[in-house]
Amino acid sequence: MNTPAPIDQLQQRLGKPASGWRARLYAIIFESDTPKGRAFDLALIGAILLSVLVIVLTSVQSIASEYGAWLHGAEWFFTVLFTVEYIARCLCVQRPLAYARSFFGIIDLMSILPSYVSLFVPAAHVVMGVRILRLLRLFRILKLTLYIQEYSMLGDALLASRRKIFVFLSVVFLIVFLLGTVMYVVEGPEHGYTSIPTAVYWAISTMTTVGFGDLVPKTDIGRTIASFMMLLGWGILAVPTGIISSEITHQRGQRVLPLRVCRSCLSTGHDPDARFCKDCGAQL
Amino acid sequence: MNTPAPIDQLQQRLGKPASGWRARLYAIIFESDTPKGRAFDLALIGAILLSVLVIVLTSVQSIASEYGAWLHGAEWFFTVLFTVEYIARCLCVQRPLAYARSFFGIIDLMSILPSYVSLFVPAAHVVMGVRILRLLRLFRILKLTLYIQEYSMLGDALLASRRKIFVFLSVVFLIVFLLGTVMYVVEGPEHGYTSIPTAVYWAISTMTTVGFGDLVPKTDIGRTIASFMMLLGWGILAVPTGIISSEITHQRGQRVLPLRVCRSCLSTGHDPDARFCKDCGAQL
Amino acid sequence: MNTPAPIDQLQQRLGKPASGWRARLYAIIFESDTPKGRAFDLALIGAILLSVLVIVLTSVQSIASEYGAWLHGAEWFFTVLFTVEYIARCLCVQRPLAYARSFFGIIDLMSILPSYVSLFVPAAHVVMGVRILRLLRLFRILKLTLYIQEYSMLGDALLASRRKIFVFLSVVFLIVFLLGTVMYVVEGPEHGYTSIPTAVYWAISTMTTVGFGDLVPKTDIGRTIASFMMLLGWGILAVPTGIISSEITHQRGQRVLPLRVCRSCLSTGHDPDARFCKDCGAQL
Amino acid sequence: MNTPAPIDQLQQRLGKPASGWRARLYAIIFESDTPKGRAFDLALIGAILLSVLVIVLTSVQSIASEYGAWLHGAEWFFTVLFTVEYIARCLCVQRPLAYARSFFGIIDLMSILPSYVSLFVPAAHVVMGVRILRLLRLFRILKLTLYIQEYSMLGDALLASRRKIFVFLSVVFLIVFLLGTVMYVVEGPEHGYTSIPTAVYWAISTMTTVGFGDLVPKTDIGRTIASFMMLLGWGILAVPTGIISSEITHQRGQRVLPLRVCRSCLSTGHDPDARFCKDCGAQL
Repeated sequence: MNTPAPIDQLQQRLGKPASGWRARLYAIIFESDTPKGRAFDLALIGAILLSVLVIVLTSVQSIASEYGAWLHGAEWFFTVLFTVEYIARCLCVQRPLAYARSFFGIIDLMSILPSYVSLFVPAAHVVMGVRILRLLRLFRILKLTLYIQEYSMLGDALLASRRKIFVFLSVVFLIVFLLGTVMYVVEGPEHGYTSIPTAVYWAISTMTTVGFGDLVPKTDIGRTIASFMMLLGWGILAVPTGIISSEITHQRGQRVLPLRVCRSCLSTGHDPDARFCKDCGAQL
Repeated sequence: MNTPAPIDQLQQRLGKPASGWRARLYAIIFESDTPKGRAFDLALIGAILLSVLVIVLTSVQSIASEYGAWLHGAEWFFTVLFTVEYIARCLCVQRPLAYARSFFGIIDLMSILPSYVSLFVPAAHVVMGVRILRLLRLFRILKLTLYIQEYSMLGDALLASRRKIFVFLSVVFLIVFLLGTVMYVVEGPEHGYTSIPTAVYWAISTMTTVGFGDLVPKTDIGRTIASFMMLLGWGILAVPTGIISSEITHQRGQRVLPLRVCRSCLSTGHDPDARFCKDCGAQL
Repeated sequence: MNTPAPIDQLQQRLGKPASGWRARLYAIIFESDTPKGRAFDLALIGAILLSVLVIVLTSVQSIASEYGAWLHGAEWFFTVLFTVEYIARCLCVQRPLAYARSFFGIIDLMSILPSYVSLFVPAAHVVMGVRILRLLRLFRILKLTLYIQEYSMLGDALLASRRKIFVFLSVVFLIVFLLGTVMYVVEGPEHGYTSIPTAVYWAISTMTTVGFGDLVPKTDIGRTIASFMMLLGWGILAVPTGIISSEITHQRGQRVLPLRVCRSCLSTGHDPDARFCKDCGAQL
Repeated sequence: MNTPAPIDQLQQRLGKPASGWRARLYAIIFESDTPKGRAFDLALIGAILLSVLVIVLTSVQSIASEYGAWLHGAEWFFTVLFTVEYIARCLCVQRPLAYARSFFGIIDLMSILPSYVSLFVPAAHVVMGVRILRLLRLFRILKLTLYIQEYSMLGDALLASRRKIFVFLSVVFLIVFLLGTVMYVVEGPEHGYTSIPTAVYWAISTMTTVGFGDLVPKTDIGRTIASFMMLLGWGILAVPTGIISSEITHQRGQRVLPLRVCRSCLSTGHDPDARFCKDCGAQL
């Protein structure tokens, strides 16, 4: 785990000012290993969570009709706050354009734009759901914790299995598409399977064992095919689990594997905490 | 498995009276390795199960309207019984407050209070559901069996995986929240997605493959997103299984590890094929 | 896999006649390693499958109303056939009572009795579903195949995990019972949660990710609890999979594990097909 | 992975003409390691995907009513295109009958026939769903990629587990059939369980945790049995996952095995720590 985290790479790309108020601002906003930087991160996360809560509450009809004015005010408060933060971020890095075009820079901009747009185009209001993308910033605070190793381990397991997963998904998609079309032919529009896309949607909901029940087969042959699909989906479900399971077991094995070599007898396989060679007794 | 069970730690904290009727009562109520203690435990479990049965039957309309008086009587019988037991427990330990504030002490109190409260506040009746928390006492009888090792093994597997599980849950929650909001925007209140919390509830029921069917996407784009979510949920399901599976396999492996002890430094954890102690270099 | 199969143990208990027509009948009916015995077994399986098909077809309204007489005739044909077979089995063993009281003997009797009872008590007709228990005989033919090893392997895996599974089920039942009761209190009879048993049924259908949708939470707090239950059920699902997965991996490992020891250097870990010691080169 | 792929075996069977325009056509159509062959493959895949898209769009009522003529034209364009391709394939191989009777040959024919048949029998239109079988050709392009190894690995895992899977499916089918029949007896036609096949369909949808909700138990005993089935299905789900998981882990282990070769007898499969050949005893 010695490779620099994406966050560090980003910071190198943005460039830290040498000194002055910009350097101090940079240390607060972009670094999280100083007390001030950590306090800023926590305050920012609090603000993000609160702004998300405002959006969620606004969506609840009964709350919106009663506290509409308060929620509207809070929304503008957070919009201004995040605008100030965005400008501060742009100011304190050496290459503002690099920040603006970075992943987090785009998210920061996208989370404040909808409010301003809504002043002119009311329909843009729905776009505000994008604001919750700011939640992705939460991952940054995780840098401080040990959890990042687990993230990378899960990521490694998925990455190492990406070919198997791609193969698996392509097979699943083919099966779902074929069986969905068969059901469209068998059940037909009179039982709700109005088109092939709808039938494929039903096939996916059946084979993933979700089973909404908004569409159900009504003919005997349709039910027979559905039964077969459910059993097949059940069996297929075992494949990704097996892939991931085997991958995690493998990674654990690799991590535990010590690569210590005895200088005396050149034997390997010593425990990480061994002080003497288990084969010849020489000091390691 | 040489660490004292939580039960034993609790008993040490409560303190056993040196002699007299309190010591004899203590041996019956708190210890389960004597015949009387075991008989008391079994009788208590029977009483708990019966009292729970009474609560369950009271909830069934047709039974409650016919045998209401009997059930009401039985409820008060068990309330008095458990009150006597609670007082006896408080009396026979050296530090009654330590018992009252312990996990089981609070459960014991909470399981008798609602009945008394219902004498004055009828609405407290519903709180009686808390009584079934007494079922947690069932775990105590398991101390007598070998099953406790399996409990601790499962517990260890979950504990060792807690970081991975936390990471996994945080990612799942983020995905569910984002996709739920997207569906709220796409489908809207006219298709039942009345608020973001409702949409998130639907997203959870979809990605966990529960699929109640009370809310279903009706637009084409909504169904496309739902199909993607189902496949994603299917794939994500593989991750916790892989984590737990790998953890249990690992624990089993550790248990199989031989217990070779170095006669020189008494260290353990040597490999099956080691010829010299890895800690002091002495011949094994 | 040298332990005698339950079938062989049963045959030893029943006793094979020394000679005469009973011995020949015994060889046909109870043994399956002679051509006649195997032919009898296949014919019996065919008859069982056909008789099951008759029962299935009788249950389909449209078919029953049209071919009722044919199906009724076929049912009596199979009833008489299986009666003859039952009497033949009783006749050709040395201890008919031992057969009649054995597992398969009881099944054989139970599969013919309902038809006779229906002559007097028409309502007994529904009991005929028991006849499909004869399908259990299908397992006997499997003795001829290599598949029996896979059966026993799966059985061993389940048997070895029975404590963990018991612990798991007891925890699951406790959780389902508690959360079901909570939902009964929260949602109440006005939303369909008419009693605690009904609420527990809903809790099971939710946590196992079945999600019928006949009962769904309608209050906000109910939906929040349901969301938590779905995620919990999703996570808990990983536990039995991990247990079984680890057990099967372990069993495979044990089977592969060679226990060959070199007589020259006493080293172990040689492959099953090795002819020379990999450590000292001596012949194994 | 040195065994020839099925595609290569097919090509050997078909026979490549020695020279002339047929040989050049063969190289373009059947081989994919030349630039022209790869371009042909990509164009063919594009045509297949587009023709499938046409079929899907035709099934959507709103699109079909507006762009019906265009879609009809596109369909005939692709039909003619694939007919030309089919004739070209037949012409350029040495044994056209061998191609026509091969798996891909039958699929190729089946994907163009329905359009011609629909000229005479309009009802055959629905058979056009078969055209999407051409999607199976997609697998051919995968030969060019490294993914084929992952396909064969998954295939190997399924093949090696086929006995366990067969045993598992036979047990599942027996359980589903028995419990479905029990539910038919318990709930009866008045609650929607109109026949045993319908009840078995419900049992499968319950035990695979799909849970459509079109049929739900309404009696107390029916709900109790359903609860038991859900828990059982949940537990049974762990078995195929365990089988596949263990198989993939095993295969990975085999692949990690070093390829040490004995210089004396050229045997392989020696352990990483072996010092002498296990087959001839020579020093490694």
